[in-house]
Amino acid sequence: MSHPVSPLAPAHTPDLPPIAGVRLATAQAGIRYKGRTDVLFVLLDPGTQVAGVFTRSKCPSAAVDWCREQLPAREARAVVVNSGNANAFTGLKGRQAVALTAEIAAAAAGCTPDRIYIASTGVIGEPLDATKFEGVLADCAGRAGPDAERWAEAARAIMTTDTFPKLATRRVRLGDTEVTINGMAKGAGMIAPDMATMLSFVFTDAAIDAPVLQGLLRDGAERSFNCVTVDGDTSTSDTLLLFATGRAGNAPLTAADDPRLADFAAALDDLLIELAQLVARDGEGARKFVTVRVEGATDDASARRIAFSIANSPLVKTAVAGEDANWGRVVMAVGKAGEPAERDRLAIWFGDVRVAVEGARDPAYSEAAASAVMREQEVTIRVDLGLGAGTARVWTCDLTKAYVEINGDYRS
Amino acid sequence: MSHPVSPLAPAHTPDLPPIAGVRLATAQAGIRYKGRTDVLFVLLDPGTQVAGVFTRSKCPSAAVDWCREQLPAREARAVVVNSGNANAFTGLKGRQAVALTAEIAAAAAGCTPDRIYIASTGVIGEPLDATKFEGVLADCAGRAGPDAERWAEAARAIMTTDTFPKLATRRVRLGDTEVTINGMAKGAGMIAPDMATMLSFVFTDAAIDAPVLQGLLRDGAERSFNCVTVDGDTSTSDTLLLFATGRAGNAPLTAADDPRLADFAAALDDLLIELAQLVARDGEGARKFVTVRVEGATDDASARRIAFSIANSPLVKTAVAGEDANWGRVVMAVGKAGEPAERDRLAIWFGDVRVAVEGARDPAYSEAAASAVMREQEVTIRVDLGLGAGTARVWTCDLTKAYVEINGDYRS
Repeated sequence: MSHPVSPLAPAHTPDLPPIAGVRLATAQAGIRYKGRTDVLFVLLDPGTQVAGVFTRSKCPSAAVDWCREQLPAREARAVVVNSGNANAFTGLKGRQAVALTAEIAAAAAGCTPDRIYIASTGVIGEPLDATKFEGVLADCAGRAGPDAERWAEAARAIMTTDTFPKLATRRVRLGDTEVTINGMAKGAGMIAPDMATMLSFVFTDAAIDAPVLQGLLRDGAERSFNCVTVDGDTSTSDTLLLFATGRAGNAPLTAADDPRLADFAAALDDLLIELAQLVARDGEGARKFVTVRVEGATDDASARRIAFSIANSPLVKTAVAGEDANWGRVVMAVGKAGEPAERDRLAIWFGDVRVAVEGARDPAYSEAAASAVMREQEVTIRVDLGLGAGTARVWTCDLTKAYVEINGDYRS
Repeated sequence: MSHPVSPLAPAHTPDLPPIAGVRLATAQAGIRYKGRTDVLFVLLDPGTQVAGVFTRSKCPSAAVDWCREQLPAREARAVVVNSGNANAFTGLKGRQAVALTAEIAAAAAGCTPDRIYIASTGVIGEPLDATKFEGVLADCAGRAGPDAERWAEAARAIMTTDTFPKLATRRVRLGDTEVTINGMAKGAGMIAPDMATMLSFVFTDAAIDAPVLQGLLRDGAERSFNCVTVDGDTSTSDTLLLFATGRAGNAPLTAADDPRLADFAAALDDLLIELAQLVARDGEGARKFVTVRVEGATDDASARRIAFSIANSPLVKTAVAGEDANWGRVVMAVGKAGEPAERDRLAIWFGDVRVAVEGARDPAYSEAAASAVMREQEVTIRVDLGLGAGTARVWTCDLTKAYVEINGDYRS
């Protein structure tokens, strides 16, 4: 909590516009942290459609189980998010805590519990005392509002080891109507596909039916959060939710092939990518933001596995931390991916500097030029396998002593 | 090179007995390091049978390619090992360097080049100047010897970031004959299956035909080196070679189902496990030796994948470094393995302390008792999935700031 703000944080956090049908409030429920907000309550107008993408962990948190169960009802009326306790691996008590949370939230929002979405982040294995939400959520409902300050407070309330709040917004035309998309995310460690972030919540005033929304979110997550890794560790709680209030007034979109969706989908993808990159920029202990591009693989799936092998390699990540243009470790990571690769066709670049080509060091390679690239705050590692047309792009950060420090101290 | 000796190093390095038919010498060829030996030359009597297991990297080093090509000839007469340069990803120059090394070694050993085995470890991507072996190997051949001091020197000459030499020996009966097995290993980072060690060389005076030897080595590697991980990174150069001189005088073993092999195989396995554990004990920056046991999985392969998911998790490894009994991260690692697991049937122990059972914290769990386990230098993490009879056991070490320091500085 007391770690300095990541040097990779954006210079400015955007001011988010209101979204008709969305009101937010935060509170201090004293779940774990002292002297800071740890609860976010979001109220959604009746008729709000919802889509969700969750961790692929075989041991998901009680909140993830709950959200998955409510999705088929398509409609959401409120979201409760707490930081400090993940309510994961808490057995029957965990399920009871989720049910009680939904009950308290439903009473505060004036709906049935099956319209409540819940996400928890923080310590695993400690039972969550949901009675702490009593009174708190009703109070939040009374003072919830739509303005930029509320969005900023919301992004702060859901942080754990995050060093900065993560917000993004887009305006886009949906047919004749201009609509808004706002999103927030939190996540700093235990970041890997799939899902890459621990928690992200996205809201729009567009009118889009839940099944269409689900398709958009699934595709968008694949190109954004599922392309980010900090440490290859997948959380039990990863949750990405998208809510559409329909208050913008467009004729509701009910078909996935509606041509009006194209611009909206592009704007949504763009926003998800921005949020996902913010997560990598806040990777625990991160000092450098790393883009790994793989080209020339036999197919995209193969390119992706190779890209993640590079992005998750402790030896590649420590080399980046040490500003060492150590392309030998990139070769190692390509080799260990187990995907088709031919040593004699490989080419590797750091930034624009080609360091290796055709199975050997580039004859024109300049150590000074490569080292200059490594000293930058943003480093791109590019690999061309020379085999086919498969490509992938993933984002990560370096592995520093601070990562070890943070995770040797923090009970997450 | 200048890092302090691992606190997990054994108190004593064993004195190795001579093996009839094996003579060793080391030298300073000045390949990269100054003021220390960097070449090992081992001479083997005519008729020595050889087996080998190598990295599964798709981008293996030139030396690995060479060794694989020579294996079908079954006979080895000499081994050349150098530290400081891995001769990996060096293209045509790399292949030429290996061919020249074999030529120089063959002249020194009085054999044909196809009887020469070569292993290189160190920097990747730098062409190896094999002319440095000229004169050096002939000189080594002139003064090679069989005694304990030569074995000790050999284990030191092949070290890179290793902080202690790794040697092991066994005596075992093969039918009516007592035979000896000596082994050495090096490896500290870039350690993962498959293969787990960068380099290991094992020698016996037993008379065993190459195909039988190959089967023994393949099985033994599966239960030893392939159960060790330091950082999940697989080297381009991993090489495990087993040489049998046949000088013990037993009737040569030519069939894999020969009952006389049972004791020999057990002794070989035991020696390989000792060497593999020494590698984990010298994991870069390691302060704790960790055994991960998984039981109750649907089958052994599933147990193994879960065990490696735990052993390779940066969050689990930093928790061990921080002496934090953070079983939530073990749950996370089980969940992310993608193998069958049911939260409500999981049980987890640190040492003998059961911390979680049936999907929740053990009601009898004592933080003090678990913390006492974590303060030990050797920590066992045990997981029972409660699903079937599959088991696995793997070894690793903790992830410390020193790992990041070593790998942010060292061009490996």
